[in-house]
Amino acid sequence: MRLEGRATRSIWLEPDGWSVGIFDQRRLPWALERLVLKTPGQAFDAIADMATRGAPLIGAVAAYGLALALREDPSTASLERSFAHLASARPTAVNLRWALERVRAAVAERPADERAALAYAQAARLCDEDVAANRAIGEAGLPLIREIAARKGGEPVNILTHCNAGWLATVDWGTATAPIYLAHDEGLPVHVWVDETRPRNQGALTAFELAGHGVPHSVVVDNAGGLLMQQGRVDMVIVGTDRVTANGDVCNKIGTYLKALAAQAHGIAFHVALPSSSFDPATPDGAAVPIEQRASDEIRFIPGPDDHGAQTRVGITASPAFNPAFDITPAGLVTGYVTEKGLIRGAAGLLTLR
Amino acid sequence: MRLEGRATRSIWLEPDGWSVGIFDQRRLPWALERLVLKTPGQAFDAIADMATRGAPLIGAVAAYGLALALREDPSTASLERSFAHLASARPTAVNLRWALERVRAAVAERPADERAALAYAQAARLCDEDVAANRAIGEAGLPLIREIAARKGGEPVNILTHCNAGWLATVDWGTATAPIYLAHDEGLPVHVWVDETRPRNQGALTAFELAGHGVPHSVVVDNAGGLLMQQGRVDMVIVGTDRVTANGDVCNKIGTYLKALAAQAHGIAFHVALPSSSFDPATPDGAAVPIEQRASDEIRFIPGPDDHGAQTRVGITASPAFNPAFDITPAGLVTGYVTEKGLIRGAAGLLTLR
Repeated sequence: MRLEGRATRSIWLEPDGWSVGIFDQRRLPWALERLVLKTPGQAFDAIADMATRGAPLIGAVAAYGLALALREDPSTASLERSFAHLASARPTAVNLRWALERVRAAVAERPADERAALAYAQAARLCDEDVAANRAIGEAGLPLIREIAARKGGEPVNILTHCNAGWLATVDWGTATAPIYLAHDEGLPVHVWVDETRPRNQGALTAFELAGHGVPHSVVVDNAGGLLMQQGRVDMVIVGTDRVTANGDVCNKIGTYLKALAAQAHGIAFHVALPSSSFDPATPDGAAVPIEQRASDEIRFIPGPDDHGAQTRVGITASPAFNPAFDITPAGLVTGYVTEKGLIRGAAGLLTLR
Repeated sequence: MRLEGRATRSIWLEPDGWSVGIFDQRRLPWALERLVLKTPGQAFDAIADMATRGAPLIGAVAAYGLALALREDPSTASLERSFAHLASARPTAVNLRWALERVRAAVAERPADERAALAYAQAARLCDEDVAANRAIGEAGLPLIREIAARKGGEPVNILTHCNAGWLATVDWGTATAPIYLAHDEGLPVHVWVDETRPRNQGALTAFELAGHGVPHSVVVDNAGGLLMQQGRVDMVIVGTDRVTANGDVCNKIGTYLKALAAQAHGIAFHVALPSSSFDPATPDGAAVPIEQRASDEIRFIPGPDDHGAQTRVGITASPAFNPAFDITPAGLVTGYVTEKGLIRGAAGLLTLR
């Protein structure tokens, strides 16, 4: 999407044609710093140290990391060593391993002197596929916004989103944000309510994205969505998801469920945007999804820049804190699943996909 | 309640018998600093600069402020001048004016040389009445906790609360916290989920209070309540309120409504603790309550101490932010109103009070 006035992806080849550029997302949204990866070790560090984030983007960085390794040494030993090393950067990220396997499959049976070029080509294809899939999610969701815009006759369509399912977590477009960007680009008046998304404040990333692309938006605390709906100021909710279980339950960032309940109470559409690969038919329902519990210090301290721009953190409480990272939105609260294969309506509609 | 091991009120007379002690609540929960008020000007500043907060406590400080003024100069001119000045410290706080009027009524018709002592006596009575009312709220709510404790047979009763309706905002006991303190004091096993309560993080005050009194608790982000209820980890919700309208709608800190919706979805009791003076029969329903919109910087920056204890703030977002301070919980979601006159069940029960 646009950033500083220019169409931008979250990963790119540098002008030298082989170095890989990414943003240091640890510094976002406060500072826009680019990292140039020239070795597989640097790609590993970018993933492990969370300079890069978002499952699709992590996969893309790993794929290019393997290409960088094969540029240095195209031997099979190098391939296997770098594969194993990169795969260990974030062991729980399934996209990471999937992307590495795609690159390995494309080069393993080929002569050593062709491997680097083939790996680069495969990494580029993987990125392009992600962009195409997200754009297709956008196309599937766009009619929902068009419909509300037509009904409101020129008034802005107010869309609430939670967490960051935006282009910075993918290669471009994002998932929940894709329909919003497309709507904005075709001139529909949209305004996004951006949930702050405590404790990690990923809403600030979403706001940063929307600002860069010129989409009107307002950050709100996670507490505000109910009042906004009471006041008729939300036309639609759209969120991303980490996983949708066989029955249509949605596992997403903590707090999503509260917005889904409020949307139901007010008859507001609640949509979930996802690549169809995020459907998990092996898990029967949300109750079977383990909920990650993260460190209490994520709640007890908030990082950010002070008034002089120096990175610091402030203490919130000395008390114990409990920090579950996800919740489950039951299928019954979901109006639609917006996928690259099209819009699937509600829990019953889900059955038509499988 | 207990603080640093000693029974403590939020306002007291110093050993000299006439200076007034309070906590500097701007420094809480990070530092426990006491202020000694020796002049009506200092009382005014404490209210205007928000060193003291909470409607009942502001009233008590103002009442003692008028006593301090009459100690300096018991003339009628002094009385009227100080009354007007103190009343202007926070113009929208009705308790402030009400407390000042009580003191004035007690002294206006009396000889000048009796006025200071009478004003002190009236301020003390006002404080004692607040303590008694809050304790009575506690007594009215205690059976709710006892009932759950009996059902759970020794397992902790998990109580979720939002914002700070605790003793630091009153003279002692608090409103929503009063039943919790009583339950804890009689040996019932309680554990409190303390909503962080963005944007002003008043949950940190509640956590500070509970820690001081030794009540087990955990701070959670405002997003977590839905998951906790899904997991069966909330037995009861209790909150304070700024105002309950004629039909039983509850105006309280932004985010209360989302917890009430979740409580309903899970069949969990949702109670509102309040002095009966907070019932507002002149306002028909929540839709008629104006919702205060506060500065966006309350969301965009978070204040607190850095790792060296120096007070600073961190930036969250450079985007616009929208900051409504309250929401409305419809009467239909309220299990009970816990008042100093007793427990009133649901919206229908409310009618029996008036």
